[in-house]
Amino acid sequence: MTAFYYQKVRRVVVPAIALVYVACGLLPAAHAAGTEGAGENFLWLAVILLAANISARCVERFRMPGVLGELLIGIVLGNLALAGIDALDALKKAPVFAFIAELGVVILLFQIGLESSLQQMREVGARALAVAVIGIAAPFLLGTFLAGPLLLPGQSFNAYLFLGATLTATSVGITGRVFQDLGKVKTPEARIVLGAAVIDDVLGLVILAVVTSIVREGSISILGIAVLVVEAILFLGGSIAIGRMAAPWLSGMLAKIHAGVAMKLALIISVCLVMAWLAGLIGLAPIVGAFAAGLVLEPVFLSDFDDPDIVRELRPLVRDNDDKQSSQIREILERHSSHHHHQLLEPLGYFFVPVFFVYTGMQVQLTNFFDTGTLLIALGVTAAAFVGKIIAGYAAGNVNRAVVGWGMVPRGEVGLIFAMVGKQLGVVGEQMFAVIIIMVIITTLVTPLVLMRLLRSSTL
Amino acid sequence: MTAFYYQKVRRVVVPAIALVYVACGLLPAAHAAGTEGAGENFLWLAVILLAANISARCVERFRMPGVLGELLIGIVLGNLALAGIDALDALKKAPVFAFIAELGVVILLFQIGLESSLQQMREVGARALAVAVIGIAAPFLLGTFLAGPLLLPGQSFNAYLFLGATLTATSVGITGRVFQDLGKVKTPEARIVLGAAVIDDVLGLVILAVVTSIVREGSISILGIAVLVVEAILFLGGSIAIGRMAAPWLSGMLAKIHAGVAMKLALIISVCLVMAWLAGLIGLAPIVGAFAAGLVLEPVFLSDFDDPDIVRELRPLVRDNDDKQSSQIREILERHSSHHHHQLLEPLGYFFVPVFFVYTGMQVQLTNFFDTGTLLIALGVTAAAFVGKIIAGYAAGNVNRAVVGWGMVPRGEVGLIFAMVGKQLGVVGEQMFAVIIIMVIITTLVTPLVLMRLLRSSTL
Repeated sequence: MTAFYYQKVRRVVVPAIALVYVACGLLPAAHAAGTEGAGENFLWLAVILLAANISARCVERFRMPGVLGELLIGIVLGNLALAGIDALDALKKAPVFAFIAELGVVILLFQIGLESSLQQMREVGARALAVAVIGIAAPFLLGTFLAGPLLLPGQSFNAYLFLGATLTATSVGITGRVFQDLGKVKTPEARIVLGAAVIDDVLGLVILAVVTSIVREGSISILGIAVLVVEAILFLGGSIAIGRMAAPWLSGMLAKIHAGVAMKLALIISVCLVMAWLAGLIGLAPIVGAFAAGLVLEPVFLSDFDDPDIVRELRPLVRDNDDKQSSQIREILERHSSHHHHQLLEPLGYFFVPVFFVYTGMQVQLTNFFDTGTLLIALGVTAAAFVGKIIAGYAAGNVNRAVVGWGMVPRGEVGLIFAMVGKQLGVVGEQMFAVIIIMVIITTLVTPLVLMRLLRSSTL
Repeated sequence: MTAFYYQKVRRVVVPAIALVYVACGLLPAAHAAGTEGAGENFLWLAVILLAANISARCVERFRMPGVLGELLIGIVLGNLALAGIDALDALKKAPVFAFIAELGVVILLFQIGLESSLQQMREVGARALAVAVIGIAAPFLLGTFLAGPLLLPGQSFNAYLFLGATLTATSVGITGRVFQDLGKVKTPEARIVLGAAVIDDVLGLVILAVVTSIVREGSISILGIAVLVVEAILFLGGSIAIGRMAAPWLSGMLAKIHAGVAMKLALIISVCLVMAWLAGLIGLAPIVGAFAAGLVLEPVFLSDFDDPDIVRELRPLVRDNDDKQSSQIREILERHSSHHHHQLLEPLGYFFVPVFFVYTGMQVQLTNFFDTGTLLIALGVTAAAFVGKIIAGYAAGNVNRAVVGWGMVPRGEVGLIFAMVGKQLGVVGEQMFAVIIIMVIITTLVTPLVLMRLLRSSTL
C-alpha cells in the first residue's frame, strides 16, 4: 500500500526530484529507520479533507447542499476497488477514522444544538412528539404488513417485523447538515425535525427491544418495555436537567482557574463529549446526547470567560464614543463576543464533520446495486420508507410539512444497526439485508436534494 | 471497565436519579441496543481535555510552563494502576489516542513553523548546524566512552554504542511548547533550537543506520551512509522547495473553487499533514515535516481567501474614515486578517495538543523509578545527556547559549525509538533499556522547568 501511494505521489507531486529518488532507492532507508504506519493516516486525512471540501464546494455551485458532495466523493473513494484500486479498503474499517468520523457527527449535532435552546424545543414539543410517533407507526405498518409480504414473499412474520422496525429509524445527521448548509437551523421546521429525531431515538430503542424480544421469546413483556421507556426518558431528561445545573457551576469554576480561550473550548467540548457518552451508555445514539448538550449550554453560562482577542483589542477604542460608527462597531463586537463559543467550534467542525460524511459515503458498496432483482425490491421498500415519514410530516401543524416529513426520511446508521441485529438473530437474510442497505443509501442520498428544493422554493 | 466508570459517574454526577437507575437496571438495556465501545473514548477525551487544562493552568499559577502540568497529570492518569485503578491502562495503547496525540504534536510544530519563515531559519542556519553537530558528537562520545563503561560495566562495546546513539536524539516537541507557552517562538534562540533539531533528526537517521549496520555486520558501508545522508537532505530540501512552489499554486486554485474559511483550513491542514507524511516516509519524525510545512506556508499565499467574518463586517464601517480611531481599528483588522490562518488553527491546537502531552505523560511508568540501583545509573547517564547538549549550546554564538543548550536536552520519543531498535537487535538489555527510559523521562520533565527559569531571568 505504501509503495503504491508513494509511487503515485512521486509521479504527481514531486516529479522534479524523482530521478534522484530512484537513484538513491528511498524505501530501504525508510524501512531501516523503523517508520510506523501512523504517518499514512496523515496522508489519508489530508486526502479526505481536500476531496471533501473541493467536492462540497463544486456541488454547491450547482445549488445543491455541500453534504451531498461529501457523500458522493466518499462513495467514489470507497469504491475505487471496482477500478482495481484497493488501497483505501483498509481505511473503511480503520478504528482511527471511524472515531474521527463519529466525533465529526457528534460535533455537528452539538453545533446544531447550540443554535437552539430548550425553550425553543419545548415550544415545538407536542408537534415533534406527534411527528415522531406517526413517523414510527406509519413506516412500521407499511414495512411489516405491506412492503415486506408483497415484495419479499415467503419469509417469516418475524422477518417482516424486523424490516418494519428498520424503517422506523431516523438519522438526523444528514438533515441537520442540510439545514446548516442552507442556514435554516433556527426555523420551526428544523426544530420539529430535531425534536422528533430525539424522541424517535428513544422510541427506536424500545422498538428494537420489542422486536428482539418477540423474535427471541415469541412474546413481549409489557412491564419490561415500560421500564425501558421510563428509564430512557428519565435518563435523557435527567441528563439535561443535571447538565443545565452543572454547566453554569462548572463554567464558573473553570473560569475562576483560568478564563482563557483554551479552557473555554475544553469546557464546551467536554460537556458535549460527556453527554454523547452518557447517551451511548443507555443505548441512545451519541449524537442525541451531543444535541442535548448543545441545548443545555447557553451562551450566558460562558460569560465569565475572556472575549476573543480581536474583540478585546477593539472594545476600548470605541467604548466612550457616541457616534453612529462606534455604536455599530460595538454591536458587531457584542454579537461576536456572545457567539464566540460557536466560532471556537467552527474550525473543529471544518476538520471533523467532512470526515463523517466522506466516511459514510465510503461505507456504500456500489456492488449492492448490481443485482437488478434486489434493486427493484429495494426501490419498493424505499418507497415505503419515503411514504411513511412524509405522512408523519402532516402532524407538524402550521409549518412547511413537506420539509418536516422529508427531514425525517434518512435512516442512516440507525437503520443499519437494526438490520445488523436482525442478521445476528438469524431473522434478516442476505437479500433482505442488501435491500435494507440500499434503502438506507437511497434515503440518505435523495433527501438532501429534495430538502434543498423544498427549502429553496418555500419562504422559510 | 464500562461498569466501573459508569458506577463512578453515577455516584459523582447523577446522584439525583441514581435510585431510579438502580431500580430499572440500566445496563441490560444498553447491551440490548448494541452499544459500541466508541462512546467510551468520548468520555476519555473529555477527561483528558479537562484534566490537561485544569492542570496546565494551575501549574502556570506557580509561574511554570503549562506543558509541565499536562505531563504531570498524564503521569498521574497513566499510573493510577499503582492505586489499584486499571481502567485507563487500555487507553495507553489505544490506537485512536495514539493517533490524536501524534496529530497534536504535528499541529504544534506546524503552528511553531508558521511563526517562523524560511528566511529567518536561513539566518541562523550555520549556528544551528554547529549546535546540531556538537549536540550529537558530545553526548555520543560521553555515552559511548564514559557513562556507558563507567556506569554499566561489563557490557559489549556495541551496547555502549547504542547508549551513545540514544543520547544524541533531540525531541523538540517539549521545547517548542515551552517557547510557545512563554511567547518566545520568534527569538533567535528558538530558531536555532528548532533548526538544530531538524538537522539533528536528519543526522539521527544516519546514526541509527550506522550503529545498526555496525551491530549487524560489524562494519560501516561509507557509500551506504553517504547515500542515506544525500537522500535525506535532498528529500527534505526537495519537499520544502516543492512545497514552496506548490503552496501558492494550490492556494490560488482552491480559493478559485471557494474562498471560504472551510477551504482555507482544509488547505493549510492538508499541507501540514502531507509534509508530515512525507517526512515519515523517509524515516524522519513527522513533526519535522510539519515544522517544514509551517515554514513553507507564508500568509501571503492565503491572500485570495476571504477575511474572517468579524473583519469583513467591521471593515466597511471604517474604510473611508480618516480619524485616529478608525486607523487604529483598521490596523487591528489588518493584523487579524493576515494572522487569520493561525487563529483558525488555534482551536485545533487547543483540542489536539494537550492530548499529546497528557498521552506522553501516561507512557511514563513510575515503577521504573523503584529500583534504586537502576535509578542511580540512570541519573549518571542523564547527567551525561544534560552535559552533552548544554555544551552544544556554546556553539550558538551571540545569544543566550544556556537557553539553546537546554532547549536541545529533551530526548522524547526519538530516544525511545533508538532504544527500541537496540532492544530488538539484542544489544540493549533490560537494565540499559530501563536506564534509557528514565533518562528520557527526566530530560523531558526537567527541561521545561529549567528553560522557563532561563527565559524569565534573561532579557529575551
